[in-house]
Amino acid sequence: MHTRLQLPQGASCFTFDEARARRAIEGRVVSVFEGWGYDEIVPPLFDDAATFDPTLASKLYTFTGREGTTLALRPDFTSLVAKIAAGRLRQVEAPLRLYYSGEVVRYEPPRAGRQSEFHQMGLEFLGGGGPAADVEVIAVAIECLEAAGVSDFVFALGHAGVVTSLLDEAGFPADDSRRELALSSLNRRDPLALAQSLEGAAGSEAARRALVGLAEDNGIRQSLDAARLALQGIARARTALDELESVTRTLEEAGLRGRVAIDLSESRGLDYYTGLVFRIYGAGLGFDVGGGGRYDALLGRLGRPMPAIGF
Amino acid sequence: MHTRLQLPQGASCFTFDEARARRAIEGRVVSVFEGWGYDEIVPPLFDDAATFDPTLASKLYTFTGREGTTLALRPDFTSLVAKIAAGRLRQVEAPLRLYYSGEVVRYEPPRAGRQSEFHQMGLEFLGGGGPAADVEVIAVAIECLEAAGVSDFVFALGHAGVVTSLLDEAGFPADDSRRELALSSLNRRDPLALAQSLEGAAGSEAARRALVGLAEDNGIRQSLDAARLALQGIARARTALDELESVTRTLEEAGLRGRVAIDLSESRGLDYYTGLVFRIYGAGLGFDVGGGGRYDALLGRLGRPMPAIGF
Repeated sequence: MHTRLQLPQGASCFTFDEARARRAIEGRVVSVFEGWGYDEIVPPLFDDAATFDPTLASKLYTFTGREGTTLALRPDFTSLVAKIAAGRLRQVEAPLRLYYSGEVVRYEPPRAGRQSEFHQMGLEFLGGGGPAADVEVIAVAIECLEAAGVSDFVFALGHAGVVTSLLDEAGFPADDSRRELALSSLNRRDPLALAQSLEGAAGSEAARRALVGLAEDNGIRQSLDAARLALQGIARARTALDELESVTRTLEEAGLRGRVAIDLSESRGLDYYTGLVFRIYGAGLGFDVGGGGRYDALLGRLGRPMPAIGF
Repeated sequence: MHTRLQLPQGASCFTFDEARARRAIEGRVVSVFEGWGYDEIVPPLFDDAATFDPTLASKLYTFTGREGTTLALRPDFTSLVAKIAAGRLRQVEAPLRLYYSGEVVRYEPPRAGRQSEFHQMGLEFLGGGGPAADVEVIAVAIECLEAAGVSDFVFALGHAGVVTSLLDEAGFPADDSRRELALSSLNRRDPLALAQSLEGAAGSEAARRALVGLAEDNGIRQSLDAARLALQGIARARTALDELESVTRTLEEAGLRGRVAIDLSESRGLDYYTGLVFRIYGAGLGFDVGGGGRYDALLGRLGRPMPAIGF
């Protein structure tokens, strides 16, 4: 037997203190989920590759299943849980509050310390619509972070409709490859590169200016009032801002307004998001510890239309 | 998006009561493991296909990793944990008492209700040699079953050396394809088919007769004394019986002799077992709920020789 003693690149392995910490945190987070009335779902490790969001296609680990179909290790839970809710759990009345805890696998470019296997815990509130559901999910996420001992974090709230409608109005339809380029400049918050990538766009000048404004670290990105001024010509962006405002008002009533900040440049990058999106940053960590958002169209595409939000 | 709503054949999915029961049992079993001083290890979901036991090769789900190597979803934990103990944990002094809980994936022929994804919990006592270690592992397993609420079970104890030495003596070396045939007849406890498959064997008549005796439901299989008489000409089988006898004596002293039965036809079918092997049957379930055994040569092949036993 010739076995390499190293583990493959990207494979994760926890032992001793790390494994103990992992199990302890998992237990505390599960208690929070269950305290809010969420039920566990343990989905399969793999499913048809077609189940997963197209933006994750290049990160899938695929293989051939028994039936000759192309399967993939799950790169995230949301699409899989939505499919199970629309299929196997079709008879279970909505709303469905489901949580999960398990590994996801994504091919990441080989770089020091980058893993392809991650432990993810999260939940989906299927059938939960409107700001009350948004706020419930944010409140559960805040309680999970506190239970896990992460005390210093910030939620960056955005709305998928802001960036999406601006890119549409700027003249980049969904299948335009330049749209991806503009989006990645925006995600890097690079206003110069963004302005350059927008030069050839045939659409509205106001939308282009607003997009560059979102990439700059200025008032438009962080204040709903400033954004309203900048986006007044764009009806769908105004609707998105209205929705976001009603979420922040509900958060205020719940005493949670202080835990969140607005970041209208946030769009999360997954195709299925349609409304509120958020990313959670841990202070001093330099990377995000989680995120989520609303995906009101996904269940409909699976034949069981209902609003939904998760993280 | 065209997504089938069914899950792929063999994929497992737990929801509601099933998921709740699963988590509750896991918690109770983890408490038993930790009570005995075992530390958790969370190994990767996949590793080089070459890591796993050759007898599992046809059951692997393989895919190509980043580095172009052939990876496989783990079909069991033992080989993977042994490799990590010999590699990443080389500096950690033996004995290592490690437990794990997670999914394993094995391709099973498509048949009603057969899954390819299973949840497995188990432990490895690396560096644990002799009957005291054998009995420790059996005692932990018994406590786990009781904690999981399985009250009616039986441990069938055997020794890999009995069947292995008899097949050697019967004249079927390890690479002889007829050996596999004989072994599968023995595992089905089919004395007629076994006798037929042994007809062409050039080795000892006594070994052939003893093998058929093991397939018959008679004294040789279940009594160490009867087996001693039948196997007296075969030195390695006698050594195996001596080892097994010292395990049953230690079990007796620990007050656990009543929970186990002898089944000398048990060989577990995995290449790496060298000593005590056991299979756990739940009453009325019609299938085994677990098993394990001693594999004293595996760590040596990985460059860190030490005895080991697990389940």
